[in-house]
Amino acid sequence: MTFDVTVLSMFPEAFPGPLGVSLIDRAREDGLWQLDVVDLKPFSSDARGFLDDTPAGGGPGQVMRADVIGAAVDSLPDDDRPRVYLSARGRRLDQATVRRLAAGPGLVALCGRFEGVDQRVIEARGFEEWSIGDYVLAGGEVAAQVLIEACVRTRPHVLGQEASLAEESYENGLLEYPQYTRPREWDGHLLPDVLLTGDHKKIAGWRQQMSERTTRERRPDLWRQHCQATGRPVEEQSDECD
Amino acid sequence: MTFDVTVLSMFPEAFPGPLGVSLIDRAREDGLWQLDVVDLKPFSSDARGFLDDTPAGGGPGQVMRADVIGAAVDSLPDDDRPRVYLSARGRRLDQATVRRLAAGPGLVALCGRFEGVDQRVIEARGFEEWSIGDYVLAGGEVAAQVLIEACVRTRPHVLGQEASLAEESYENGLLEYPQYTRPREWDGHLLPDVLLTGDHKKIAGWRQQMSERTTRERRPDLWRQHCQATGRPVEEQSDECD
Repeated sequence: MTFDVTVLSMFPEAFPGPLGVSLIDRAREDGLWQLDVVDLKPFSSDARGFLDDTPAGGGPGQVMRADVIGAAVDSLPDDDRPRVYLSARGRRLDQATVRRLAAGPGLVALCGRFEGVDQRVIEARGFEEWSIGDYVLAGGEVAAQVLIEACVRTRPHVLGQEASLAEESYENGLLEYPQYTRPREWDGHLLPDVLLTGDHKKIAGWRQQMSERTTRERRPDLWRQHCQATGRPVEEQSDECD
Repeated sequence: MTFDVTVLSMFPEAFPGPLGVSLIDRAREDGLWQLDVVDLKPFSSDARGFLDDTPAGGGPGQVMRADVIGAAVDSLPDDDRPRVYLSARGRRLDQATVRRLAAGPGLVALCGRFEGVDQRVIEARGFEEWSIGDYVLAGGEVAAQVLIEACVRTRPHVLGQEASLAEESYENGLLEYPQYTRPREWDGHLLPDVLLTGDHKKIAGWRQQMSERTTRERRPDLWRQHCQATGRPVEEQSDECD
């Protein structure tokens, strides 16, 4: 079954961009997903072709009009694909949400520009609002590409080795361990000894330790959740979880 | 002064993608920033042109080689631009980091593929590791585009109305209020009354209230930080911050 993506954007020329390379591109050629980018501009009811107007109640910038977005949404087939509005006002996207969306029939992704989209059409047309992170972008196009890439790569047959999905960051609540490869010595830096032992149990133990240490140092929030979820004793928690 | 960006990627054709449209593209044409995308493939020392090899110590997938990345980095002018490796193992990117990076002379952004990059070159060449969010991508290209877009839009003269920077999500610790624009009635949905009053103080109060409510509902983590930072009394905190 294919994963059917429609993007609504003022700047269709931003696509496919990063979605046009490597395994995501190959998956599209193989029919594992489809990308339809709908240009919002023809849906303007304005003789000048504008899609936006000044904010009701005043303030800087411009807001994308509800009638324009509504007309574009209503021109799509009436199916049950989740509608997602990429917005700094949204809940924060995480891997569980990616998994949920990727398990469905596809997506309709709305890319905002300016100060955003008139809130009435977001609510009336049932868009979920998701933010890809705590920073501000110039537009929703790159955010939609992030969401689409994250979803598509989890679909069946997209990755060559499905095993690599299981061990990676965020799938088990910890950041991944560091990776190394040949040559054994590079620029005076040797591979960690343990990786040369061939002792799979020892290597797995070291990787788990590195994974925990990296998470503790870089993401104390994830580390606390991990401690709680795995039921580490309170003493060890208060010691290691700060 | 320009903002000088170099991207190291196996897939230079993913660029400019979303960086090639609208105000980010215009800013590049105006010389406010520069984009140089370096193809990693010619830096392979392998007769077959491979950039990657199997993980030291075993495991699924492939790892990008330190010698290849090192040669590419060492081919760049030796300047003081921060080096950023986009990686799910990194600290989580936020607007404060975007501001810090955007205030500098530019960036060198390394895009990983496969299971990532040999950790030795990340450390030896002084790359900061940043993750754009808690989800997994197929490669670092779209993550680099997110970082670059977020940085460039905060640079002087890139946005038409600099005022719009101050009120937006994440800049004051709260999500932004909802936006509306003409027409007054769309598809049976009216504008919120308060926005039609012309009473600027009342509108500002309503927007603040909506901003707080949205943050409380969608981002309890930000809301708690906001309560702590603004010194709301503990009673009000424990009431409103859950």
